[in-house]
Amino acid sequence: MTIKNRQITLAERPKGMPDEQTFQFKTEEINDIQQDEVLLRTLYVSVDPYMRGRMVDAESYIEPFQLNEVIEGGSIGEVIESKSDHYAVGDVVIGSFGWQEYYIAKANEVRKIDPSVAPISTHLGILGMTGLTAYFGLLDIGQPKEGETVVISGAAGSVGSVVGQIAKIKGAHVVGIAGSDEKIQFLKDELGFDEGINYKTTKNLAEDLKKACPNRVDVYFDNVGGEISDIVLSQLNTFARVPVCGAISTYNSEEADLGPRVQTTLIKKSAMMQGFTVGNYTDRFKEGAMQLGKWLQEGKLTYRETIVEGFDKIPEAFLGLFKGNNIGKLLVKVSDKSQ
Amino acid sequence: MTIKNRQITLAERPKGMPDEQTFQFKTEEINDIQQDEVLLRTLYVSVDPYMRGRMVDAESYIEPFQLNEVIEGGSIGEVIESKSDHYAVGDVVIGSFGWQEYYIAKANEVRKIDPSVAPISTHLGILGMTGLTAYFGLLDIGQPKEGETVVISGAAGSVGSVVGQIAKIKGAHVVGIAGSDEKIQFLKDELGFDEGINYKTTKNLAEDLKKACPNRVDVYFDNVGGEISDIVLSQLNTFARVPVCGAISTYNSEEADLGPRVQTTLIKKSAMMQGFTVGNYTDRFKEGAMQLGKWLQEGKLTYRETIVEGFDKIPEAFLGLFKGNNIGKLLVKVSDKSQ
Repeated sequence: MTIKNRQITLAERPKGMPDEQTFQFKTEEINDIQQDEVLLRTLYVSVDPYMRGRMVDAESYIEPFQLNEVIEGGSIGEVIESKSDHYAVGDVVIGSFGWQEYYIAKANEVRKIDPSVAPISTHLGILGMTGLTAYFGLLDIGQPKEGETVVISGAAGSVGSVVGQIAKIKGAHVVGIAGSDEKIQFLKDELGFDEGINYKTTKNLAEDLKKACPNRVDVYFDNVGGEISDIVLSQLNTFARVPVCGAISTYNSEEADLGPRVQTTLIKKSAMMQGFTVGNYTDRFKEGAMQLGKWLQEGKLTYRETIVEGFDKIPEAFLGLFKGNNIGKLLVKVSDKSQ
Repeated sequence: MTIKNRQITLAERPKGMPDEQTFQFKTEEINDIQQDEVLLRTLYVSVDPYMRGRMVDAESYIEPFQLNEVIEGGSIGEVIESKSDHYAVGDVVIGSFGWQEYYIAKANEVRKIDPSVAPISTHLGILGMTGLTAYFGLLDIGQPKEGETVVISGAAGSVGSVVGQIAKIKGAHVVGIAGSDEKIQFLKDELGFDEGINYKTTKNLAEDLKKACPNRVDVYFDNVGGEISDIVLSQLNTFARVPVCGAISTYNSEEADLGPRVQTTLIKKSAMMQGFTVGNYTDRFKEGAMQLGKWLQEGKLTYRETIVEGFDKIPEAFLGLFKGNNIGKLLVKVSDKSQ
């Protein structure tokens, strides 16, 4: 029986917001697997803002996507055929095989996950790269101390929602900035943030931030860049730390990203901005994942996922990231695990 | 005999470049000194770019100058009368008594310096705050490693000229940016910089910088801010460190300091910018001063001073900082030490 594998490739490099021209659906036949390979059926794919950066041909910390190749990204699959001693049919694995319904993986390209610990989707979220991004960015760079004020932009997103909870575990006063009242309610009621500011409806973000941060901002976890960050940076405290994780407000802009230069602020406040990507911490992933899992089991961390159903919906789900559609981690469910 | 003490006070807060309205010359009579006080005659006063920041009434790491009060700043004086057990007539001391010809200091307001080790003026320069600023900014924040590329703006100034030499001691490839051919020659011929770029005459700073930094920029010691820094920041290497020491290009501007936002660069390069002031390192001054003194004695460090003569010339000398008049540390000599 031949298997038809649907794939989504990068058809052209987007200028501004990606659209239906950006992606192409293709179908190819899956070959027979070889020794030390497994055939996977995709269960979940992750859609993440950083993928926008890989769609253009610019130098960055990660290679650009190749035109007419499958869009790579975090994904979870079930082994449906195995010629590897390490994997049995029914095993659930995680890898970077991206936006396709099936994939033939070499044994060392994927890693088994234990579905008994937590829902498998969490390995693309709070127990996966987004959780680890929050963990290392906040703790290694932000280093919040008890009683300090931590501000997070994109606070209801996959990373921000974890950052705020870890900051609370560390005893900080936590303020989230997000784009809807529903998100603000989620931050305060479900995640225990002290304050939330809806940047879309506020009349004066600077004033609201001042009220929410009477002792100014010790740690600013920046997921968005742009004008929101300009305002938060203007309220830093002495010796503030700014982990720079993302700049989603600028990813689809073709205009120059101009704003107030930061040098004077950094000098006046002896403040620090540090860009990072989770890949910098590869050798500490185990530590991070164990701690996140422990907090999750102890009930100190919680999470929400926004799950879109259906392979066809992947491009639409991805674009939804830039509209702020998701609360927590945004995933696309491609198929159910077999019983 | 009454002593007339000439002083320079802040007459009004400057908008844009300070001018003759900014400063006022006053004369007051010196009172008798009390127990535990010394009377100082000023030998040298330091003029430094950071003082421009203190002339406006804005929140910063240091209090603004008060209107109609003497301009404070690093200065060296000779004890001409003493009622302190700790100081004898003829001792040379350093303090912050600023722009005046005489000063009555409490014993704990000043610190004795040893004129036998190095010329006394060096205690306002390479062995003083500017040397320490270079030392801690480069070594604690920049942390250059052997073979890395260090770029310095304002490279021929009091701080930059020391930064480059320390970077050479650490085995780095050192590139200085400065504003005259004379300065570039000084950097290369006298201080041992590998490359120098005259930003005023270059046709394309970005291209010249690329040529001078084939492996990109690992450490950027930023003294100037503005467009020069925009260009250097665009050529950072992965895991680059940017000690942000000054932004002299902007200090006299009343316009908003707008430029490319740094977030995307910082993320792409996992790069770090850290503002600082030398005051952050008070508890390590002794270590820094000892190391600088040792390097100086070993001939591993050299320095140049631009010395303007005469108390009346202080405002003019200060303004010269922003015209790039000085090579190395800029000082005003107010009087000779008695023999």
